Amino acid sequence: MGPLVISAAERAERRKQVEKRLQNEGMNGAVIFSPTSIFYLVGFHFIPTERPMALILKDGTATLYVPRLEHEHAEKVSDADAVRSYPEYPSEVHPLRRFADLLRELGLASVNIGVDADGYASSWGYRGPRLSQVMPEAKITPGLGQWIEEMRMCKSDAELALIRESCRWGNLAHVLLQRYSVAGAREIDISMRATAEATSAMIDTLGPIYRSAGSATSSAGFRGQIGANSALPHAVTINATLKPGDTLVTGAGADIYGYHSELERTMFVGEPNQEQRRFFDYMLLAQDLAISLIRPGIPCSAVEREMQRFYQENGITQYTRHHTGHNIGLQGHEMPFLDLGDETILAPGMLFTIEPGFYVEGLGGFRHSDTIVVTENGSESLTYYPRDLDSLICG
Amino acid sequence: MGPLVISAAERAERRKQVEKRLQNEGMNGAVIFSPTSIFYLVGFHFIPTERPMALILKDGTATLYVPRLEHEHAEKVSDADAVRSYPEYPSEVHPLRRFADLLRELGLASVNIGVDADGYASSWGYRGPRLSQVMPEAKITPGLGQWIEEMRMCKSDAELALIRESCRWGNLAHVLLQRYSVAGAREIDISMRATAEATSAMIDTLGPIYRSAGSATSSAGFRGQIGANSALPHAVTINATLKPGDTLVTGAGADIYGYHSELERTMFVGEPNQEQRRFFDYMLLAQDLAISLIRPGIPCSAVEREMQRFYQENGITQYTRHHTGHNIGLQGHEMPFLDLGDETILAPGMLFTIEPGFYVEGLGGFRHSDTIVVTENGSESLTYYPRDLDSLICG
Repeated sequence: MGPLVISAAERAERRKQVEKRLQNEGMNGAVIFSPTSIFYLVGFHFIPTERPMALILKDGTATLYVPRLEHEHAEKVSDADAVRSYPEYPSEVHPLRRFADLLRELGLASVNIGVDADGYASSWGYRGPRLSQVMPEAKITPGLGQWIEEMRMCKSDAELALIRESCRWGNLAHVLLQRYSVAGAREIDISMRATAEATSAMIDTLGPIYRSAGSATSSAGFRGQIGANSALPHAVTINATLKPGDTLVTGAGADIYGYHSELERTMFVGEPNQEQRRFFDYMLLAQDLAISLIRPGIPCSAVEREMQRFYQENGITQYTRHHTGHNIGLQGHEMPFLDLGDETILAPGMLFTIEPGFYVEGLGGFRHSDTIVVTENGSESLTYYPRDLDSLICG
Repeated sequence: MGPLVISAAERAERRKQVEKRLQNEGMNGAVIFSPTSIFYLVGFHFIPTERPMALILKDGTATLYVPRLEHEHAEKVSDADAVRSYPEYPSEVHPLRRFADLLRELGLASVNIGVDADGYASSWGYRGPRLSQVMPEAKITPGLGQWIEEMRMCKSDAELALIRESCRWGNLAHVLLQRYSVAGAREIDISMRATAEATSAMIDTLGPIYRSAGSATSSAGFRGQIGANSALPHAVTINATLKPGDTLVTGAGADIYGYHSELERTMFVGEPNQEQRRFFDYMLLAQDLAISLIRPGIPCSAVEREMQRFYQENGITQYTRHHTGHNIGLQGHEMPFLDLGDETILAPGMLFTIEPGFYVEGLGGFRHSDTIVVTENGSESLTYYPRDLDSLICG
């Protein structure tokens, strides 16, 4: 069995698709700054810093432009046909000026260049000119980032295989998280123990066929959604100790060659009270409904509209805080979104988290998230962790 | 003893400084999209997603604009005088159009607005118009991000106290990492064990005075710099097992209310050979030299120029891959950089990582990184982990 990765051939096909569209739109080449897109197209995962990187596509050739410190790494790991590097950032000559010279050398002066951004963007202290400033003779056409994100919307069989693998190890991390969630235990200890053990098991199991492209972990945690604080849908980790009666909202997943899945559960420390049961039941009904709505050919907005109707009919709209779900893959959230404002048509291979949630001040948050894929006739859930209340009582 | 945080009063002072500069430059208000800058100015740490967030400063009032799901969180945690929210992204009305209406309501139509970016930027599937497109009647003036990064260059006493605390727990994580680095042990197991134990010890020790704003950990690892792979300065985690004779390059730190430090060491599994000793000695000499050069009043470039002279005199320039160091604080790398192209003048309170490195194919990488602060007369090292070779032999 070969390593759990996307093949170089599949990435070559992706680049061909981009080049074909460039041609159709009358563009002579492409410049891509997004680290995710660079990984998607040439398999180079790196740590983005103040030092700009870019991928150039032209006439079937992929050239990576990297700082000196990434030169050997890019040659070793990426599919790029050529790697070119600059000494350092900021350096006496700004890296983007040298980049403009490279583009000219590659025949991209005075032509139409498709880009995903008009320059490099990093929050780590980078400052620099726009590409259009250092290439005034070229026509810089934005929009490429959108194309590539559209290509990523429907997952290939190879991508789905990695995401199924991610679900498996997210499941293990979550089993351990639930096992260690007892009254008196502390958020960070539980989460770190589950994460460390699940990761070791994953790497022991997959050994030489495992490749990460990011965090290299199978992880699970609460992100601060413990007790009353679980009513904050995007809480951040707090220094909490579990108490009897706490509502918990969890999250688990694993990085398989950069691909992710999402598994979230509402759990209780000991027996839940009636109010907790009531909102748990609404949540489960809502999730069942959302899953039943997923099928190809309908717009994302239609799913959310049905969900909004359900909330209104039950008089629980005031407890909702967000849309039903999002696509997922190389990034934690990807477009499209199951949202009133998203008219994207669902198609086979699209992946969605299904996570309608209710948030009740003083009581807690109620949200499961399952990762499901749109099929020819409906959907298939890739998540198989139990969803019923009895299975989710801890301690 | 109070919690290890930056006080609301210090953040109010930061906002005053921004507002004063806005006034001097003839601007009527500010819009800030950067999550780091928002945390810096109003103490709100959040998970950036496809949902835009922004901070508005006007006439001494700070208004946070957030998605519905962050409303209570922002009210609970931030210093903002007001929190305003929109239903969801993308929604039937784009959040940036609602934002434009809010700016008009706050009296910011048809005036000069300072911004750190002409719109929200997130790689998680966000798409939207520029601020200048939804506010055509206003004058949108960029550059605010640069001001705020400049404010962050010299650390206050409170910031330095948090960074000293970060050094302490990074030290513990590294001690454990070194202890568990024996031949036959696996990268990820070592790193996770050291990280989990150091984090538990940190939270046990600091208890109620500990606040994170990010990862909530004290961590240590190798990031793939093991054996020959350590010759890649920015390797990423691989599935490696330590072998006798391996050169290791490590990294450790801790998140104290969002502030970071950097501790990196070159270590050996068992006795190093002569070549390893030779490059280790060069590295230590280079680091000693760099530390000795740090003092207020000289430009960053002067430090790097001296270092380049040292490399040339010793005939080792070909083994270098990057500049001497960078500022650090809320982010892993911050400006300025100890680089030939950076003319920033060193001043008391500026923090630098000092990390000249040598990278030898087939043999490994040789880099320590210490976090030091510029003082009135020279510098003080905040890192106190041993640097000598004998202390860094493992197993």
